[in-house]
Amino acid sequence: MPKTRLDLARIRAARQVIDPVFLDTPLYRCEALEPDLGCAVSVKLETANPVRSFKGRGTELVASGLAENGSRAVVCASAGNLGQALAWSGRGRGLYVTVVASRFAPAAKLDRIRALGAELELVDGDFDMARERAAAIAERDGVRLVEDSLDVETCEGAATIGLELVDAGPFDAVLIALGGGAMATGVGHVLKARAPGVEVICVQPGGAPAMTLSWRRRQVVTTDSTDTIADGVAGRRPIPAVLDDLLLVADDAVLVRDASIIAGMRLLFDHAGLVVEPSAALGVAAILEDPDRFAGRHVVTIVCGGNVDVDAYHRWIGATPLPPIREVDHGPESHGRVSP
Amino acid sequence: MPKTRLDLARIRAARQVIDPVFLDTPLYRCEALEPDLGCAVSVKLETANPVRSFKGRGTELVASGLAENGSRAVVCASAGNLGQALAWSGRGRGLYVTVVASRFAPAAKLDRIRALGAELELVDGDFDMARERAAAIAERDGVRLVEDSLDVETCEGAATIGLELVDAGPFDAVLIALGGGAMATGVGHVLKARAPGVEVICVQPGGAPAMTLSWRRRQVVTTDSTDTIADGVAGRRPIPAVLDDLLLVADDAVLVRDASIIAGMRLLFDHAGLVVEPSAALGVAAILEDPDRFAGRHVVTIVCGGNVDVDAYHRWIGATPLPPIREVDHGPESHGRVSP
Repeated sequence: MPKTRLDLARIRAARQVIDPVFLDTPLYRCEALEPDLGCAVSVKLETANPVRSFKGRGTELVASGLAENGSRAVVCASAGNLGQALAWSGRGRGLYVTVVASRFAPAAKLDRIRALGAELELVDGDFDMARERAAAIAERDGVRLVEDSLDVETCEGAATIGLELVDAGPFDAVLIALGGGAMATGVGHVLKARAPGVEVICVQPGGAPAMTLSWRRRQVVTTDSTDTIADGVAGRRPIPAVLDDLLLVADDAVLVRDASIIAGMRLLFDHAGLVVEPSAALGVAAILEDPDRFAGRHVVTIVCGGNVDVDAYHRWIGATPLPPIREVDHGPESHGRVSP
Repeated sequence: MPKTRLDLARIRAARQVIDPVFLDTPLYRCEALEPDLGCAVSVKLETANPVRSFKGRGTELVASGLAENGSRAVVCASAGNLGQALAWSGRGRGLYVTVVASRFAPAAKLDRIRALGAELELVDGDFDMARERAAAIAERDGVRLVEDSLDVETCEGAATIGLELVDAGPFDAVLIALGGGAMATGVGHVLKARAPGVEVICVQPGGAPAMTLSWRRRQVVTTDSTDTIADGVAGRRPIPAVLDDLLLVADDAVLVRDASIIAGMRLLFDHAGLVVEPSAALGVAAILEDPDRFAGRHVVTIVCGGNVDVDAYHRWIGATPLPPIREVDHGPESHGRVSP
């Protein structure tokens, strides 16, 4: 049992608290991907829920805890998905939710945060600047600050994915998008505790490598900037406590190029019919960049989010603008004839 | 309890036979669709499984029955999805599967049928010609012919969707794609038995209206041809026994235009991140064409398949704007699209 901050009994109990709409997500072999990837691939699909990402698993724990304690408000910084999920979970429990995000976050994510009734504050900087601002708001207003990956509920919520994987296994390896580390430490904790033979591989964009570099050097490495389309995992300042946990549960952390992420998004669209955001294609990107490593093995990739700006997505998957659709007009009663 | 050929106890028992990968599919409110549709919309998502459609529910019943009886082979006609599903279910049980399809079926569906190890025979005609050819093969080889919608396993397999809807309800209406009628009679049977207050609305393309016209006239109506992009539901010759069942469980059957199906596919892509085949957008198309009917109600649409040819799909959802829905006008009272 890895000695992280996470607790398997609490993770099991979390399944009773999290709205079932976020649990027991599809997990299935996706053979149509396999000729291109050279290994057996199963998809764990976290996009078919009201917020289109896995983050609801964690925010359900946060919001239910706050509601039990009589709290009325909560604030978080978000790259876009946590904010949507906290807005959803908080709305259902009468919480006043404030989300701080970068104004460079995908408009689709920001629009959904507003639509879910949260107050959205934008900062003129990146996710780590949003973190600072959210902390200042929490301090000023005396409300709970939800810190993704640092707050153990966010990790233990994500860890329920691990329970579902273990129940459905065996697999040889699980590919997990790595950003702040909530999903990687959460899923990794459960796998190491319950299925230690499964290789836990974290995948991060080369343009936002801080946590991967930290994991490799076993100490926090920060970067000055990020440069990747994978907005959901683009942090610069790893949290020391999260790194400590990640060191206990990850077997590897790899970096991939944005070109591979785009290729992965395209494969998932073309052959699996899945619309995924860049962070959710990191696993497929890792296979594309190192097929020998995975050849002949059975690999799970967690498709962790599907919130994309449609225009950017069209560019990534190569849809070209086309002439207007021809008018198709059938009278509703056309063609009918009574059989003799 | 409607007196169809279906049996609720058998449908409940079917859940023990069907591979869990096809069961308990996502069901969730999709609020991002609602400003365009003017009602509360929940999606029942049948695309996140190894064959990307609901058809596996039925073929699991067929194949397990055949395997129990020691059968070694099976043949079916398919518009594309049944063939994939039967190939998948048969492969897992050592059955030799032959699928007869129209050579005009989407290449993506045909490729997957082959990839799943089935023998694929193409006819130079439509689905109803494939049905004749499949029957001839079954006769010649003395093997079981699986007839979609006629064979009660195909209906009762689809009916397990209804059990999942009833468990998650209440809803005001359920929109079901109508082709041969397996899904409509299956889901309709369960709803009428267990949740009779839910309106069961079948939706068919105006270019392939045979079953809808038959339902309205209470006798089989055939058509000479079909003309729709919704290949999955494009039949010309309703099966009398299926029509009899449909008359007992459907509250309405409506026809929609292909332009509305395309608009529905785009909405599902843009606002729900879902890749759906035309048949799976029929429900959304029905809301777009008659928003007043659904205004303020909670509607479930079963997203029944996601097997699309990528090139055609790009054309359908391409970067051109949504067609003006106001032009989709079925009568002088039509109020067109609901304003967000």
